[in-house]
Amino acid sequence: MSGNTFGTLFAVTNFGESHGPAIGCVIDGCPPGMELGEADIQAELDRRRPGTSRHVTQRNEADAVEILSGVYEGRTTGTPIALLIRNTDQRSKDYGAIAQSFRPGHADYTYWHKFGIRDPRGGGRSSARLTAPTVAAGAVARKWLRERCGIVFRGCMTQIGELAIPFESWDHVAENPFFAPVADVAPLEAYMDALRKSGDSCGARVRVTATGMPVGLGEPLYDKLDADIAWAMMGLNAVKGVEIGAGFASVAQRGSTHGDALTPEGFEHNNAGGVLGGISTGQDLEVSIAIKPTSSIITPRQSIDTAGQPVEVVTKGRHDPCVGIRATPIVEALLALVVMEHVLRHRAQCGDVRLPVPPIPAARA
Amino acid sequence: MSGNTFGTLFAVTNFGESHGPAIGCVIDGCPPGMELGEADIQAELDRRRPGTSRHVTQRNEADAVEILSGVYEGRTTGTPIALLIRNTDQRSKDYGAIAQSFRPGHADYTYWHKFGIRDPRGGGRSSARLTAPTVAAGAVARKWLRERCGIVFRGCMTQIGELAIPFESWDHVAENPFFAPVADVAPLEAYMDALRKSGDSCGARVRVTATGMPVGLGEPLYDKLDADIAWAMMGLNAVKGVEIGAGFASVAQRGSTHGDALTPEGFEHNNAGGVLGGISTGQDLEVSIAIKPTSSIITPRQSIDTAGQPVEVVTKGRHDPCVGIRATPIVEALLALVVMEHVLRHRAQCGDVRLPVPPIPAARA
Amino acid sequence: MSGNTFGTLFAVTNFGESHGPAIGCVIDGCPPGMELGEADIQAELDRRRPGTSRHVTQRNEADAVEILSGVYEGRTTGTPIALLIRNTDQRSKDYGAIAQSFRPGHADYTYWHKFGIRDPRGGGRSSARLTAPTVAAGAVARKWLRERCGIVFRGCMTQIGELAIPFESWDHVAENPFFAPVADVAPLEAYMDALRKSGDSCGARVRVTATGMPVGLGEPLYDKLDADIAWAMMGLNAVKGVEIGAGFASVAQRGSTHGDALTPEGFEHNNAGGVLGGISTGQDLEVSIAIKPTSSIITPRQSIDTAGQPVEVVTKGRHDPCVGIRATPIVEALLALVVMEHVLRHRAQCGDVRLPVPPIPAARA
Amino acid sequence: MSGNTFGTLFAVTNFGESHGPAIGCVIDGCPPGMELGEADIQAELDRRRPGTSRHVTQRNEADAVEILSGVYEGRTTGTPIALLIRNTDQRSKDYGAIAQSFRPGHADYTYWHKFGIRDPRGGGRSSARLTAPTVAAGAVARKWLRERCGIVFRGCMTQIGELAIPFESWDHVAENPFFAPVADVAPLEAYMDALRKSGDSCGARVRVTATGMPVGLGEPLYDKLDADIAWAMMGLNAVKGVEIGAGFASVAQRGSTHGDALTPEGFEHNNAGGVLGGISTGQDLEVSIAIKPTSSIITPRQSIDTAGQPVEVVTKGRHDPCVGIRATPIVEALLALVVMEHVLRHRAQCGDVRLPVPPIPAARA
Repeated sequence: MSGNTFGTLFAVTNFGESHGPAIGCVIDGCPPGMELGEADIQAELDRRRPGTSRHVTQRNEADAVEILSGVYEGRTTGTPIALLIRNTDQRSKDYGAIAQSFRPGHADYTYWHKFGIRDPRGGGRSSARLTAPTVAAGAVARKWLRERCGIVFRGCMTQIGELAIPFESWDHVAENPFFAPVADVAPLEAYMDALRKSGDSCGARVRVTATGMPVGLGEPLYDKLDADIAWAMMGLNAVKGVEIGAGFASVAQRGSTHGDALTPEGFEHNNAGGVLGGISTGQDLEVSIAIKPTSSIITPRQSIDTAGQPVEVVTKGRHDPCVGIRATPIVEALLALVVMEHVLRHRAQCGDVRLPVPPIPAARA
Repeated sequence: MSGNTFGTLFAVTNFGESHGPAIGCVIDGCPPGMELGEADIQAELDRRRPGTSRHVTQRNEADAVEILSGVYEGRTTGTPIALLIRNTDQRSKDYGAIAQSFRPGHADYTYWHKFGIRDPRGGGRSSARLTAPTVAAGAVARKWLRERCGIVFRGCMTQIGELAIPFESWDHVAENPFFAPVADVAPLEAYMDALRKSGDSCGARVRVTATGMPVGLGEPLYDKLDADIAWAMMGLNAVKGVEIGAGFASVAQRGSTHGDALTPEGFEHNNAGGVLGGISTGQDLEVSIAIKPTSSIITPRQSIDTAGQPVEVVTKGRHDPCVGIRATPIVEALLALVVMEHVLRHRAQCGDVRLPVPPIPAARA
Repeated sequence: MSGNTFGTLFAVTNFGESHGPAIGCVIDGCPPGMELGEADIQAELDRRRPGTSRHVTQRNEADAVEILSGVYEGRTTGTPIALLIRNTDQRSKDYGAIAQSFRPGHADYTYWHKFGIRDPRGGGRSSARLTAPTVAAGAVARKWLRERCGIVFRGCMTQIGELAIPFESWDHVAENPFFAPVADVAPLEAYMDALRKSGDSCGARVRVTATGMPVGLGEPLYDKLDADIAWAMMGLNAVKGVEIGAGFASVAQRGSTHGDALTPEGFEHNNAGGVLGGISTGQDLEVSIAIKPTSSIITPRQSIDTAGQPVEVVTKGRHDPCVGIRATPIVEALLALVVMEHVLRHRAQCGDVRLPVPPIPAARA
Repeated sequence: MSGNTFGTLFAVTNFGESHGPAIGCVIDGCPPGMELGEADIQAELDRRRPGTSRHVTQRNEADAVEILSGVYEGRTTGTPIALLIRNTDQRSKDYGAIAQSFRPGHADYTYWHKFGIRDPRGGGRSSARLTAPTVAAGAVARKWLRERCGIVFRGCMTQIGELAIPFESWDHVAENPFFAPVADVAPLEAYMDALRKSGDSCGARVRVTATGMPVGLGEPLYDKLDADIAWAMMGLNAVKGVEIGAGFASVAQRGSTHGDALTPEGFEHNNAGGVLGGISTGQDLEVSIAIKPTSSIITPRQSIDTAGQPVEVVTKGRHDPCVGIRATPIVEALLALVVMEHVLRHRAQCGDVRLPVPPIPAARA
């Protein structure tokens, strides 16, 4: 209710600050009997870890996860799974200078006005570091959805700054630090090197998908599957836009073009992005998000302090010049958490539904 | 939980089908003591009512609202406010022919697979008619927010099909059936007349804003204000994209441009769209949505029936050739409901917060 | 959240006032495909209806229920089921005299202080009349639980005032207006006649059970099955105590006596009342509640008015001299709603659990 | 939703197993700006700690709490407060012998059937050890309620086995290991010594109160203050009955006796236990609970194993012969958590209510 829990049936309660003793989460509602070990979670955490290339923040966090509860003899018991990640490389001195100022584009000003108090160390609670527990919880959801339902989540970067990135193959995504679906990332590296030298930052566009979706997930009227996806994505730090399927391009489409025709062999295309009337069609979920440029830049910015006086703010800490670069594993986790919730909701209410005719196959591009 | 309730503290539970006996909602959590009568709600319902111009569906519904509870001697009592709207102009025979077919772009296929049963009369539960109770509930929220907090909600159409609509003035919005902020809507009328003749439909882009916002609304980490706005908007029928502030344009922006500088006189601009770190800045909320073209068109479409066999579908009922035309009052209501929820949440947790320095003023364009 | 919704997965939102236009509820989350008509609900409403004997209030309400949504061609569709009951016999003039006074033992004083406004007509929202929508919703839950799971709910009165009522047979419960499990209710009638003449009221003790329970319902740690039962029962008007199984008698028991031994043929007895560790054992649920004497009596009482001045209050309306008499169908409905919720929760999380050994049989008394 | 979260606005999510690495909780929704340190919480944990007298389990747990988040420079920030308690004295070998058997009166059988898997070490999740995080969270709520609202929570034992304990003074409660309000506990010690020698266990009755209550807390219709109290209390391990105010004694009362008369000087008595119509009256909350005898006894018991075969079960671990002895600090914490939730809910909806006349004073015994 105070905003730190994701989901209701598969409920992830996130805690911690960037430079406090620890961050983590509690997952309540995980189905029992699934094999689960720290390695399953660590693999996903390592994908979003800082310090893995020169294009991202040089903060060096091991992000080693400890399972505190909910697993017995290597299997989930159905009781809460508490995950703990100790902070080890917090350098609070980097931030002392700006404790009384509000960095433009950051949550400093709004946290201070909301709560009357603010933990300035590394952005405190508003730090993107708090996506780590989300990724950890997402790893648990992904494992269950893959093993139980055959659903797989994949994402990639499709634009960085002005630079559009063509889609060549999912296979390339794991081969470069940008999660770019292209073989040759030299243009991206050149772009980022120039940006870093300029002391500025840029935005990005990221795509995330789910394949192997069943038909029927999503709860009309308000808790539609696409509504919950939009909630999850827009809630990620720095996201300013979310699209499902054709997205904003659908504004200029005609109905005769947009509406995906159904055939016994499957849908003809996927303008819907896998959702109709808020319920999954069985086609791939297709989501795209806009990530704003990092607000922490070394270029001096005009601002005010807590006394309301004008100040100049220069951010000196270690920051990602494009936060979108590390976003891919996070948005995959977010999509997995949404789908997990809806799989459980669906079988609660509709677990007895049996139809005489199977769904039509998904038309995969 | 099954998806028909909007909000938690100001909780709106929506019920009804397009061609059943009635639609309506129950509002739980309205603060007591506010003057409220049916006329307050009817005014907003009339703004979204069908049949008001040749550009929208000719279904003729009075949409007369009855307050069943929660109001005593003209004031809210703090107990649930039940609102009832009887359906009067349902013509189910229009839909009989398609009961066994799935209309492309519609929820027919997904409802059938989810529930194993489907009310085909007018789209049943998936009909846009179910936005009427949302608008009614929004009218209650808007009244309280205006009287208690000075917050005002306004929306307008900014694009229809390929046709961009410039912003001239809020004053024009009430003067034409498109909710367009322009004095001369002749081009829009010509565009729609041609579209209707072609038997096709088009999409739209709609903007919605809130002015008079306080600083501090929104709950990190997950229930951010912008996340909840995205949930509300994407949950509206036919919406495929949501932007806050600079939206997708922020992908190509630089951090030095995007981050709105703070000055004692206010923010320099509003790329953030009124939200930083998921919390309101006090600037106007700025939201933009993409609405897909209406799926119900008279052009024949390829599809399948409930037995999985190919069929041709022609929709004959009365439909909006651009559902975006009537969307403006609905998205205003949705934004109001999100803000209402967060005002109540905020004072629950942070009702005692007092700061020595007032917020900086909103920089209104 | 504002307290008018019962359950999360099978969520019943209750609205209305005793003397307003109507009362009712919206059920969200009912599984689709169940046959349901108004007659199924009316049967339960008629069991709790006022005016059925000289021992209860003479208010004459038809309590005719109308299904507004969620049912198509006689089957539930999975969308919200709205139930409407018009008030027809409200005589507000009976209550005018006490609008400015607070009746002792009533909610008048607390509602007024909470909301700053109060609907005094027939107790407004605090009237026991608002149990009718609960009974209606319970009828839907009972039908599904009986047909799908074989669970049956039964209750009876076990004490009225000082008069203990022995248990003879469930068969007698439907034969008398007290829901007493005895063949001869002459002593009860004599007791009530004397009480009515005295102008006073008395309390009651009511027992409610569920048979055919599966093992495994209930969510540790906090949302235990017995915790939710206690919540439901204590939330009923006039209830001051709740027991599960041995209840308060367990205080003086020894562990060697209380703990129900398990055998391959079943549990030896049922001190647990069908719940261990918050989870159902498969034995019958056994619940007992204490209902306080009706607060509305014709004997003059000392009180204060809204100005804080002393007044004498005499209640003249039509009231039950023992509200416990009509409680049995209500507590059966409440227990059904709790079990329904937990059946859906259980299959959401644990729908895949399969054990090699079946549960032991319930040892029925 | 899976039952491990207490409250919605002040939401406590509990995790851990008796013999896992750690137990703890996350508190979401604590108002910001309150001074808070580990010592504030430790004080309450020490009151319920095992090993403090010969009458309770000899397990030796330091129960040292660590605050992981949500506090900055000694003040709450409004973000989640994660509390961690490492388990240090788990002796799993004590429990190995019974891993395949179901102890009568325990949750062994029900957990196994619900989840298909069970952590047998020390009762796993069903252990009363999991009340420690509840007590820790309660300490935070108690501090805020005391400082902000002047509400104080006190409890005491009123019966142990057959032995009723008279109320002499609150002052004695802290002077003896029974939380008994009497100066001379020699009879209690003799009783317990004899019980321990017999190898058996006994039940207890515990009373808990809140003083300094405001008028107006509690949400009709279902989330009544007394309903939520009953939920909290019945959800505590081993509780089989809950009473508010006159409780089961009200069955035999007359309305003219039960209904507490109002006078300008206060209520005449407190049969209501501080709640009318589900809303607090401003009088003291008066709650009484029945705790069953400990199920873990050294007397051999008949049972079955996981294969359904008959076995004899002897519990050898370290157990409380009367779990009620350590219950007092726990039920105080539970009552505080319920009140905290309702204070926040109340100001969310009714924060603007202002009445011309103050409440009447509470009539304290």
